[in-house]
Amino acid sequence: MLKDWNRLEQPSKEEMEQRLKKARARLEQQQILMKEKKLPVLVLLEGWGAAGKGSVLGKIIKNIDPRFFKVAVMDEPTEEEARKPFLYRHFVKIPEAGKFVFMDSGWMSEVTREKLRGELSEQEYKKKIESIKRFERQLTDNGYLLMKFFFQIDEKEQKKRLDKLADDKNTSWRVSEHDVWQNKHYDKCMDVYEQYLCDTNQSSAPWYLVDAKDKKWAQLQILETLVQGIDTALQNSTLAVPLLQNAFPLKPIEKLADVALDKTLTEEEYDTLLNQYQKRLRELHNELYRKKIPVIIAYEGWDAAGKGGNIKRITEALDPRGYEVHPIASPEPHEKARHYLWRFWNRLPKTGHVAIFDRTWYGRVMVERLEGFCSENDWQRAYVEINEFEKELADWNAVIVKFWVQIDKDTQLARFKERENTPEKRWKITDEDWRNREKWDLYEEAVNEMLQKTNTAYAPWHILESNDKKYARIKALKTVIEAIEKKME
Amino acid sequence: MLKDWNRLEQPSKEEMEQRLKKARARLEQQQILMKEKKLPVLVLLEGWGAAGKGSVLGKIIKNIDPRFFKVAVMDEPTEEEARKPFLYRHFVKIPEAGKFVFMDSGWMSEVTREKLRGELSEQEYKKKIESIKRFERQLTDNGYLLMKFFFQIDEKEQKKRLDKLADDKNTSWRVSEHDVWQNKHYDKCMDVYEQYLCDTNQSSAPWYLVDAKDKKWAQLQILETLVQGIDTALQNSTLAVPLLQNAFPLKPIEKLADVALDKTLTEEEYDTLLNQYQKRLRELHNELYRKKIPVIIAYEGWDAAGKGGNIKRITEALDPRGYEVHPIASPEPHEKARHYLWRFWNRLPKTGHVAIFDRTWYGRVMVERLEGFCSENDWQRAYVEINEFEKELADWNAVIVKFWVQIDKDTQLARFKERENTPEKRWKITDEDWRNREKWDLYEEAVNEMLQKTNTAYAPWHILESNDKKYARIKALKTVIEAIEKKME
Repeated sequence: MLKDWNRLEQPSKEEMEQRLKKARARLEQQQILMKEKKLPVLVLLEGWGAAGKGSVLGKIIKNIDPRFFKVAVMDEPTEEEARKPFLYRHFVKIPEAGKFVFMDSGWMSEVTREKLRGELSEQEYKKKIESIKRFERQLTDNGYLLMKFFFQIDEKEQKKRLDKLADDKNTSWRVSEHDVWQNKHYDKCMDVYEQYLCDTNQSSAPWYLVDAKDKKWAQLQILETLVQGIDTALQNSTLAVPLLQNAFPLKPIEKLADVALDKTLTEEEYDTLLNQYQKRLRELHNELYRKKIPVIIAYEGWDAAGKGGNIKRITEALDPRGYEVHPIASPEPHEKARHYLWRFWNRLPKTGHVAIFDRTWYGRVMVERLEGFCSENDWQRAYVEINEFEKELADWNAVIVKFWVQIDKDTQLARFKERENTPEKRWKITDEDWRNREKWDLYEEAVNEMLQKTNTAYAPWHILESNDKKYARIKALKTVIEAIEKKME
Repeated sequence: MLKDWNRLEQPSKEEMEQRLKKARARLEQQQILMKEKKLPVLVLLEGWGAAGKGSVLGKIIKNIDPRFFKVAVMDEPTEEEARKPFLYRHFVKIPEAGKFVFMDSGWMSEVTREKLRGELSEQEYKKKIESIKRFERQLTDNGYLLMKFFFQIDEKEQKKRLDKLADDKNTSWRVSEHDVWQNKHYDKCMDVYEQYLCDTNQSSAPWYLVDAKDKKWAQLQILETLVQGIDTALQNSTLAVPLLQNAFPLKPIEKLADVALDKTLTEEEYDTLLNQYQKRLRELHNELYRKKIPVIIAYEGWDAAGKGGNIKRITEALDPRGYEVHPIASPEPHEKARHYLWRFWNRLPKTGHVAIFDRTWYGRVMVERLEGFCSENDWQRAYVEINEFEKELADWNAVIVKFWVQIDKDTQLARFKERENTPEKRWKITDEDWRNREKWDLYEEAVNEMLQKTNTAYAPWHILESNDKKYARIKALKTVIEAIEKKME
């Protein structure tokens, strides 16, 4: 792309001024339309060091109300960020509906820098490219406009600019070691950038190369492209998106109706096994910490199925400094204004830590589907998106355990009644629980579809037969232990 | 305290079991009452390395539903945290209403460690003690229960435990360099801890020393103290708190009615000065970055006074990678559930960066006061609390500039009407603006009181006469420049 790129001819100064004026005025109008249509816009500025990303960015945001944009500067990952999946720090910065985020460098810089430093094997590089393509598609499929710009300057021009910056004590800090290295290895870098741009040039999120030798001309190229992109997106905002085939290895799983719920344990069996498994899990937690392996345990299940008590039997065995339980309720406004997976990305554990989700991202294909909180296209697309999300976690070497806590309808009724009749438990039962119960059959259908479509080899579901809570707790402990042991091997 | 501490006699095993059972049952009941009464509880666990904080913590949280607590492990500050005021990382971890946070080590560890390493002069230490006392009082005054425990073991016991941990590869990572150092310098540490405990033993947040030689006994001491503390707090939850005298250096400031609003600038004067000041501010931004000085600019003012346009003239001069504008609307649920300053602590800049607040923490003594969103005791207390907050920022060496953007009532009316009649501006005017306008006199009274009570020497107010927006913008730029230059000297 970069190598045989057809540059546009730079217009006359006069023409530039005219066109700039027009584009700026349009951008000012667009910010209001974006707000109305709730369009989130992520603008990624990549390119050579000293190509002028910062100063062009400064000019562009002048036309936007500060309430409607944020700027994110993506330096090298911090120690904390390095302990999360590599897309984490980018994903958590995505804009809210109706707003801009401008990113000064992003995932391209990160991956190409690693490649240039020889930190990535060809296979690892390819894996990251796959992750990036999925990430970008997940954004655009979910209504984000993603605009990617690459600022191009030639070797000489870069050298000239770096020298100038380095000469002034107030700007010399802007010249990073990497910038200098880049200039010295310009051709090598060019090859890697060229490759990356080709690898990630998708129709839903294409690259725009910017001739950055002249700052005003660079500004105009970006403004015009941006304004055009926003206009297109504003027209499209209600379009549905093609559903992708589920290309992940799926395993068969039984339907809820076929789950045998008569499994039980005696008190004695329970006490013995509980003791034994909790002891084992405690040991494994220490090992996990030492080996820096992250663990994600996801709980879904019927109301009153016994998720809370089940989770407790797991956490009792864990060092309180090394795990967190995330109860998931309906999203808060700032969460609702973003990609539905955003709040889960935000809650991922560090390596060596355990995160337990009490309800999860599967809300998308259950409550959000059934209550109409998202469109049919949205929830149908979500199976693949969720498989992709979990693939990121698996590739990050996480242990992933997903539980469906199963009871039958009569058992639920008995437990609801017991909750209502026990003062200390009354807070656990709400009108919503009763309303959900009325939709049991619809939920069962949705759950069955969910289990079939997301039972991947790398993140399988485990059904916990929880008519007997003791049985379910022991099975959960055993499942978690086995999953961790398997990863340790 | 530690040195002449009267230990309780350890009860018999049998008695302990009985009392543990009782305390655990009470804690289980209390979590529901806390939820109902929206009581937030922060439990701070401090003490010697290997004193067993983690394992006792593990036992205590077994009695609490995972939805109702979080555990925060406070290691050494990260690089990012080190670029914020020292209380930042603690403040952002405070619990939500109705929930627990258990902190495994906290601000005591941090300050005593610094003191032991010789990183703090006597004066710096005293300043930190003052900050801590204010922080703790601000929590308890705002309805938080703060329980502080110190785990005590003697030198020999510590040595024994550290050796045992170090011997096992699965636990050796738990022994930090600091633990070993602490044991080797036990007496010196004892002196520093003793001093700290005395310095921070306030009646609203007293210290509880825990005899930690026996784990079960330690657990019982904590459980019983905690349960008692929660019971007391549950009874008190609607009590008002004594108002403190404003002990900060206040400067006189004129009343809004006396502000001369006839100041204007011609277009030519404006253009020349805008150019000149923006250029200067741009230079200073580079210097700020280099010298790692944080800047906080706070905007308050009447609706339609011209805050937005004023802010824009500041940000136009700044490098977009070094500032952030925070528009402050009504708090989201997770923000409302915490101390009212929490969301501002969360938005503090890093050193070397600029944060601009479009509306601020002064909402407490304006909209929250007038709309009854907090009690009278709450907003009356807030003047001192806010002065304290800003003192923390000043002590952190921040440049603090606070603007009140002033217009008269007729000018507001004219601008409201213009907004309504201009399609691109219509989004800026809401029914709420009209409702607020009806309360102009009440607001004016509140603003006058606010200006008088919070015009501190270290964080003074500046009134921007904004009937002529051009005049106000130039004055804002000039004021920011002068404040930064003064700090640079």
